[in-house]
Formats: sequence, structure tokens, C-alpha cells
Amino acid sequence: MPEYKAPLRDMRFLIDHVFDFHAHYLALGATDASPDMVGAILEEGAKFCEQVLSPLNRSGDEEGCHFDNGVVTTPQGFKQAFAQYVEGGWHGLAADPAYGGQGLPLSLGLVISEMIGSSNTSWGMYPGLTHGAMSAIHAHGTEEQKNTYLRKLTEGRWTGTMCLTEAHCGTDLGIIKTRAVPRADGSYGITGSKIFISAGEHDMSENIVHLVLAKLPDAPAGTKGISLFIVPKFLPDAAGDAGGRNGVHCGSIEHKMGIKASATCVLNFDDAQGFLIGEANKGLNCMFTMMNHARLGTGMQGLCLGETSFQGAVRYANDRLQMRALTGPKAPDKVADPIIVHPDVRRMLLTMKAFNEGNRALTYFTAQWLDVAHLSGDATQRQDAEDLLAFLTPICKAFMTETGLEVTNHGMQVFGGHGFIREWGMEQLVRDCRIAPIYEGTNGIQALDLLGRKVLGSQGKLLRGFTKIVHKFCAANAGHPQLKEYVAQLDGLNRQWGELTTQVGMAAMKNPDEVGAAALDYLMYSGYIILAYLWLRMALVAQAQLADGSGDAEYCQGKLATCEFYFKRLLPRTTTHRAAVEAGSECLMRLPAELFAL
Amino acid sequence: MPEYKAPLRDMRFLIDHVFDFHAHYLALGATDASPDMVGAILEEGAKFCEQVLSPLNRSGDEEGCHFDNGVVTTPQGFKQAFAQYVEGGWHGLAADPAYGGQGLPLSLGLVISEMIGSSNTSWGMYPGLTHGAMSAIHAHGTEEQKNTYLRKLTEGRWTGTMCLTEAHCGTDLGIIKTRAVPRADGSYGITGSKIFISAGEHDMSENIVHLVLAKLPDAPAGTKGISLFIVPKFLPDAAGDAGGRNGVHCGSIEHKMGIKASATCVLNFDDAQGFLIGEANKGLNCMFTMMNHARLGTGMQGLCLGETSFQGAVRYANDRLQMRALTGPKAPDKVADPIIVHPDVRRMLLTMKAFNEGNRALTYFTAQWLDVAHLSGDATQRQDAEDLLAFLTPICKAFMTETGLEVTNHGMQVFGGHGFIREWGMEQLVRDCRIAPIYEGTNGIQALDLLGRKVLGSQGKLLRGFTKIVHKFCAANAGHPQLKEYVAQLDGLNRQWGELTTQVGMAAMKNPDEVGAAALDYLMYSGYIILAYLWLRMALVAQAQLADGSGDAEYCQGKLATCEFYFKRLLPRTTTHRAAVEAGSECLMRLPAELFAL
Repeated sequence: MPEYKAPLRDMRFLIDHVFDFHAHYLALGATDASPDMVGAILEEGAKFCEQVLSPLNRSGDEEGCHFDNGVVTTPQGFKQAFAQYVEGGWHGLAADPAYGGQGLPLSLGLVISEMIGSSNTSWGMYPGLTHGAMSAIHAHGTEEQKNTYLRKLTEGRWTGTMCLTEAHCGTDLGIIKTRAVPRADGSYGITGSKIFISAGEHDMSENIVHLVLAKLPDAPAGTKGISLFIVPKFLPDAAGDAGGRNGVHCGSIEHKMGIKASATCVLNFDDAQGFLIGEANKGLNCMFTMMNHARLGTGMQGLCLGETSFQGAVRYANDRLQMRALTGPKAPDKVADPIIVHPDVRRMLLTMKAFNEGNRALTYFTAQWLDVAHLSGDATQRQDAEDLLAFLTPICKAFMTETGLEVTNHGMQVFGGHGFIREWGMEQLVRDCRIAPIYEGTNGIQALDLLGRKVLGSQGKLLRGFTKIVHKFCAANAGHPQLKEYVAQLDGLNRQWGELTTQVGMAAMKNPDEVGAAALDYLMYSGYIILAYLWLRMALVAQAQLADGSGDAEYCQGKLATCEFYFKRLLPRTTTHRAAVEAGSECLMRLPAELFAL
Repeated sequence: MPEYKAPLRDMRFLIDHVFDFHAHYLALGATDASPDMVGAILEEGAKFCEQVLSPLNRSGDEEGCHFDNGVVTTPQGFKQAFAQYVEGGWHGLAADPAYGGQGLPLSLGLVISEMIGSSNTSWGMYPGLTHGAMSAIHAHGTEEQKNTYLRKLTEGRWTGTMCLTEAHCGTDLGIIKTRAVPRADGSYGITGSKIFISAGEHDMSENIVHLVLAKLPDAPAGTKGISLFIVPKFLPDAAGDAGGRNGVHCGSIEHKMGIKASATCVLNFDDAQGFLIGEANKGLNCMFTMMNHARLGTGMQGLCLGETSFQGAVRYANDRLQMRALTGPKAPDKVADPIIVHPDVRRMLLTMKAFNEGNRALTYFTAQWLDVAHLSGDATQRQDAEDLLAFLTPICKAFMTETGLEVTNHGMQVFGGHGFIREWGMEQLVRDCRIAPIYEGTNGIQALDLLGRKVLGSQGKLLRGFTKIVHKFCAANAGHPQLKEYVAQLDGLNRQWGELTTQVGMAAMKNPDEVGAAALDYLMYSGYIILAYLWLRMALVAQAQLADGSGDAEYCQGKLATCEFYFKRLLPRTTTHRAAVEAGSECLMRLPAELFAL
């Protein structure tokens, strides 16, 4: 297994310099997140992830979860690690102090989430889903519900789930069959079967709080007739502790390609007692309020697994001796040169590095806007942040998972035949990553959300909110002595982005299929431009630090070389994505469905 | 598991029309391969693969191989299927009649290999490796060696392996440590350890004939000091049957990401008796004589697994009901539309279809040249064929496995969450496919072989051998009423290909790293152009059949629509690969190795 070391230097470069988290936190009044506090949290988080979670990653994959007559046991060490995590105060880090949390900004929680996801993605699903449930209850629960459930969840004594998918529907939640029948006491009897429920049953907590989408008897058809319910595994007793067993049971766990240590459950609800949360028939809206956060988290899995894969691949490429450099021996005292001398191996490593560091910058950039949306006292600022998040979120989810999958595949390839062998751990990263483009809304759905709902749905306003930022940035740096060429390249693409959008928008007015035909390529095209902007922001800082001698010169050289690589070898992919967008829908729609396979 | 049906219609379209196998066989004097015989072989081969091999694919993956104290047991049913295969006369189909084979052309054997690889890639490794060993002995063995080993291998009573890799070297065979010490009787004592030996030990045959690379005591250093030895598991007795146990034992089998039913063995040779095959110190040359065939076979795994994935995905996309078409309901009587109405799902399906059918055409095209190289009575024709094969082989291996991996990933994505679940079988195809870009020479090595050794090494001659074919084709079809636009597009790319090659060649004269920096993208760029040529050849036939009413109109429509899709949505990828080639080596080589990770 590649040993994981939290990339603290890169994290600090973004936090301290590129995005100046300290000024950002001060501006939002998040004074608890002082530089000292941030530093301590990074150090301690790294220790926990490196020393506790990382060693359980391979063994968790090999052992998987156990299912026995409704009881799910997580792999050895998982439960103890969760106890340590809770005891260390990590669980409530970014939670509301009113219910036992520490009230630090979400962005800081996400930095820790990256470390968790890199060291053990499967394990991270358990607290991850709990955080999702906490957000929902925080946003939509009554004061009583918050006191009953949110406190226990924040303490980490209870965990949470999100129960959306059913066997016949995932994307199309309008057709769910789970029913909620009102009871005399104001609660509801929930009946139905949910599948793909992460952390749906396990042995890590005293109780599990399910958030369940179901339909009331008189609900309108489709997505406007879905309500959200709290359905605890054990009903709270008079003291607020886990009491009587509720009518929800785990029917089985899935056998999956990856994230095998994450229990993916079939949950059967048999007239289980549930409590409406939020308004009746507004359940999907409740779910969507936490979607930005959850989708960013899923997107980050691409970054997390990519980072671990990169660390393994760089180490291997420096150790593995094979063939001589084309320009002559570089390690003449050895039997062969380390494979990092070969340009094609470097192509893979630099692709990994450019995506990882770019995706990390995208995560931090987005996380800051999440902070603003949550913490700013200024309503206009909050709305601007929400707009930007609406635009960035589907890109974060899809672009980071697509590129993360590419990265983990490169990492495996660097290892040659050894990459295919389980003991080396590189193939697990590919398998674990492969779910990320699928769940939390497939990347195809993200792309439709971006182009259809967000960009065209706002008549381009949400796009312009971002291209304006890029435009200003380019104008301010057009004369930069070392980077002006890249600035010009970005500026050109930024203009083209608007034009391409107009073009698709015009076509879509005549034929709605144009949106679906363009969507995925449009999203990837957008992602590459956004990463170019972020790479330039990093390069500017690195260049400045080199010039004034304030930074680590070697580290800054690495940033500049990787930026160059990104602009020369990865950003040109926009050309192909643009061509695909411009190809239009006809070549996709012409063939009758029954003629696809003959 | 997606049920596999051999795509006989598409195969027949290529065999009967696009590539006219019948005229091709007649010209080569392969009169046994009559149209009736070919038809019967296709039908019977399909039955065997669909009914015997395909049902063992999922169970083989779940069960894997068993290792117990040197003994390897293959999954349930594998041994019986091999017996049936041998009994059905499939094993010696394309083998030399002088040693018990049926002497049919290699191209026909490859058509059957496709069906085997689609229905059960792991199982196909056992006969596949045996065919490799047969080729080596056929080309380089003495008459006695052929009578002793080749006959038994052809009969399928014995199986074979290729033992190249050692723990410290895969690509770099010049540094192998396995030693061969001459014995008084003219044989050799072989000592050393080999890893990653497919079919190295198993329960399917009476004996296993290992072809082993080793070094003689006085061997020159590097690749010019490697010899090839036959090392049978059981030494042939006086009657020629498997006799006394030789000193080669299986130390363990690997735990892998995929092809789990294929036993990947560590083989320990402890003064095992070996017999030199071919000339001393020319072992690597002996291996390379069968490389074209073996690498085409590996490339085909991308096609094979892609085909099965496509069949599963199309079926699912027609069955799965989810959301409504953007242009309004298409199945108003159902709860939702089948997902094949959505443009993005079609994008994935058509990408799969275009690569599969294009890769199949590439396989058949290349297989015909293999036939010519083997069977033609004309030495010039044979040399031309060898030249073309030298050029095409690395492209077949790398392009078909890269695109095959993309295809199987799309197939999984079409299934949404269900794609990640093992029972559906779609994720197995991804895992099984993932080894193909790695083994039999990584795709990075293929790319170096293509650009460095083949194209630039021949001063462009091997490239021109192919671009001339394309040029003539374009000239002949420049005025085609329906397809001329695509012909012009291909013609332009064909010219650009030559220019780009000259450009890289000039740069490489100054700096050898330019070859390594450009290689992978150059190979993919080349692959896309070759597939465009083959797609147009198919489209021309389909168009002609539509015009004269001779073909199946619906099938021909499918071909034309897919050709259009290929030209509009996939061929533009050449732009990005060209940009990467043109970006040069500096942005790859600048960063010192120790600064990749800080």
C-alpha cells in the first residue's frame, strides 16, 4: 500500500498564500480559526490519518464488511478508529456549537476530509454520511429534532445516512415507491425498500439516524410529492438515548468493485416510525440544500485517491530501475536508471501532479465560497456565493472524479505489472475511485445540471459570474513578465467559453437534445479552463515568492514547471471537448434505439 | 453478467464484404478455408463460446484460482471446458498440419479468439499462451523438438507458457538473472525465479511446456546475451509422454485486480533441465518473431471486453426506465423513458460501438497481413506484409487496449450504481481489461517501439507504407457523393500525419527525449487516423449495399450513423494528441526528479 503522507506543504501554500484563509476567516468573523489553530489542526489531522486510518485501508479492502442476518460488522480496526476520531474531537469540528460542535469553518473541515479520503476512502464514508445527515437536520429540523438527533450525531455517538435510491430509481427520484402513512401521534409509518445506502448498517455507533425520502398518501406525482423523514434505527427513549428497535432492517450488503469496507446496504422499512423533517412534499428541496457540500465531497474523492496514487507512483518511479534514459545513463553505477528518467513516465506523473494540485486548488477555492454562503453577514455576498457554488458544484463533482479516475489509472500504469497486483495497493485506488463518477448524481447528470439548469437556466448569468472573475484576473496580469503567455491563453479561452455557451444556447432553443448532447463535454471543457485559472493563480504566487526569496525555491520551481505542463499538455484538451460540443446532437440521435445492436 | 452473443453479423460484414476473406484466402492458396468452412467455424465457435465459456466467466472471477503447496486448481468448469475445446478441434485450428494442426489461416483463428476473449478472457489465457509457445517452437525448434513438444501442444494435451519477467525486470529483459548452465548431455540446468507467468501452473493439461529466457555463463551483457530454453514441467519419457518431474515449481499465484481465473504464477526453477531452442544468445529475437501475433492478441482483449460490455450496456439502456427525454416522453405508457433516449447515454453507447467495430476492423485488417506474411509464396509480398505488421502491431496493442478500457468504463457508467455491483458483471469487464494496457509490453513501450524503432528508425518508410494506402483510398473516393467530406477529412489528417512525423523526427535528432515525450500521443493520434480509414471503408460498403439493396438496410444505417459519429465526435481527439506531441519534451524533463513530490 502506498504510504500516505498528508501534503501539508501544498495545503499550506494554498491556505497561507494563494487563498489567504486567515484574512478570509477574519473577514467572516471566524476568529476561532486562527493561524495557530489552523496549523495545529492540520498537524494533528495529518497524524491521525497517517497513523490510524491509512494502515486500515488495505486490510479493510481485503476483509470487506460482514453481513450476518441483518447485522453488519465493519473490518477490523474500523470501529476503534471511529472511536478515536470521535474522542479526538474531529467529528464536530465544523458543526454548530449550539448543538455541541466546535463551529470551525466548513473549509477547514474539508481540508481534514481530504486527508481522511486519501488515507481511507471507505472509512471516510461513515463520518461523511453522518455530516450529510447533520446538515439536513440543521437546515430543516425543528428545535426538538435538533436537540434529539443533531447533538448525538455531532457527538459521534450516533451516525446518519441518506436513503434516496430504490431498485427501480436512482436519478429519477420522482418515481420512488416508499410510502409514509400518518399516524395518530403525528409521526409516520414508513414502508418500502431502499438500496445503495452507505453506512446503512454497521457496528460503529450506538444508533443510526436514517433520512428517508418517501411519499405521503395524498402526495402529488413526481418530484413535487416527496417528503423527508427521520427514521432512527433505535427510537430515542425518555432520556434521549437509543431505545426500542424501530422497523428498519438491513436486508443485505452489496458486493462491489471497490470501497469494499464501506457497507452499502439494502434497507427494508416495515412500518418503521418516522418523523417528518421540513415541509411535507418538499423533501427533495431539503435534500438539495446540502447537495453543494455533498457533491463537493464526492468530487474530492477524485483528489483524495489521486493524491495517494501520486505519492505511490513518484516513490516507485524513483526506486524502480529499468532501462536507460534515451539521452544516456543517469545512474551509471546501477543496473539501470530509475524509471522517472523516461519522458513517458514523467508524462504520467506530471498529469497526476497537475490534476491533483489543480483539483486541490479548486476544492479550496470552492470551500471558501461555501464559508461565505454560510457565514457572511451580508446577504448580497451570500447570494453571490450561492450563485458561484451553484455553478462550481457540478464541475467539482464531475471534473474532479473524471480526472481523479484518470490519475489513479496513471498511478497504476507507472507500476507496470505490479500495479495490477493487489498487494501493491495501486489498483485499489482505481477501484475505490471508480464509484465517484457514478454516485451522488452521475457525471452525466452533473453535466445536465451545469449546462441546462445552471448556465442556460440562468441565461448565462451564473457563467458570467465566473468568467468575470477570470477576465479581471487576466486584465490585471496581462503584462506579467514570466506568465503573460499563459494569461493570454486563459483570456482567449475565457472569451471562447462565453461564445460556445451562446452557440449551444441558441441551438438548444430549437432542440432541447442539444443540451444533453453537449453537456458532458461542456462540463469538462469548463473544468479545464477553471483549472487553468487556478494554476495561474498558484504560479503567480510561486513566481512572486521566487522573486522575493520568501518561499521554498524548490517547491516554487515545481509549481511553475507543473503549471507549464498543464498549459502545454493538458489545457489543449479543451479543443477536443469544444469540437464535441459543436458536433451537435444529430449524430447522437439519428440512430433508432433498436438499431444500436443487431 | 451480460449475456454474450457472438456479433456474427458484424463479423460476416467484414469477412464477406469489407475485407473479402474468400478472395484473400484463394489468393494465398488457403483453399481449405472455403466460405462454407468459414461459415461453419463461425457458427460452431459462437455456440461454444456462448454456451460453454460465457457461463463460466462470472463464477471464475468470483472463485479465482486456488493455490495449495505448489498445486494450482482452476475455477470450477474450466478444466472441462478446456477438454471440450480440445475435443471440438479448436485448439489446432490454425496450427501446422505437419504436427497435427488443421492448417487454417491465422486470421480465422483470431476471429475465434475474439469470441473466446469476449466470453471469458481469463479462460482464454490458457490456450492463448499455448499458442504463443507453439509459434516459438514452430519457428525456432529443431525437428525433434517439434515432434516432441509441438505435437502435444497442438493436440491440447500439453499447454505452454512464456517465462520472461523477473521480480526486478519486466521491460528491461537485458538484466534478467536466471542462469542456464550447460550439462554434459547437451541440455542445461536452469536456475532462477520468474514472475507473472500466465498459465504457469494449473490442472487443465497433462504437462506444461515452459519457454524460459535465461543467460548462459559466458553470455554477453544485456539483451544480446539472452537465450531461450524449453523447460517442461514433466520431462518427456521414452514414449514421448509426460514422464519424470522436472525442477520447476510454482511458488505462489498472484492476487490481482482482474483476470482472476487466470493463474498468474511465480515459477521457481531449481536446476531444472532445459533445452536450448534457437541459437544461443538469440533468445530475445526468437521471442520477438511471435510478438506481432501475441501483441495483436493482447490488443484484441480491448475489443473483446468492449464488445461484451457494449452488449450489456445496450440491453440495459433499452430496459432501464429513468427520466423523460428532453424533447418529451417517448414511452408515455411507462413510468419513465428507457435511458437510451438521453443524448449523453447515446454518447457513451456510440463511443463504445464506434471503437468496438473500428477495432474489429483493425483486427481483421491486420490479421490479413499476418496471413500474407505467413502464407504468401511471394517474398516481396511477405516483406511488405512484415513491414506493415511492424507498423500496425504496436498500434493494435496500445490503441485497442486504451480504447477498450474506455469502452468498458462507459459500459459500467451506463448502468449507474448497478455498474459498480459485482453481480451485474459490468465492473469485471473493466477489471479484466485493465491489465491489457500493461502486459505484453506496456503501452508506453509500444509507443516507443512505434515512433522510435519503427517510424523514425525506418526514416519514415514504415509510416509511408501505410499512408500510401490511405492516400490511394482517398484519391479513389474523393468524389463519393455521400462520403466525400469524410474522405477529405481523412486525406487532410493523412498528410498532417507525415508532417507531424517529420517535425518530431527533426526534433529527435537534436534531443532523443523528444521521441519519448511524443510517443504515446503520437501512437494514439495514429490510431485515430487508422480507425478513420477503416470506418470509411466500412461506410463505403454499407453505402453501396444500401444503394443496390444488397445488404440489410437497418444494419447499414447503423454503420453509417456510427461512422458519422466517429468522424464528428471521436476523430477530433487527434487535435489534442497533436498538440501534446508538438508541446515537446522540455515541459516533461525540466523538473528534477527529487522535486516531483515535496
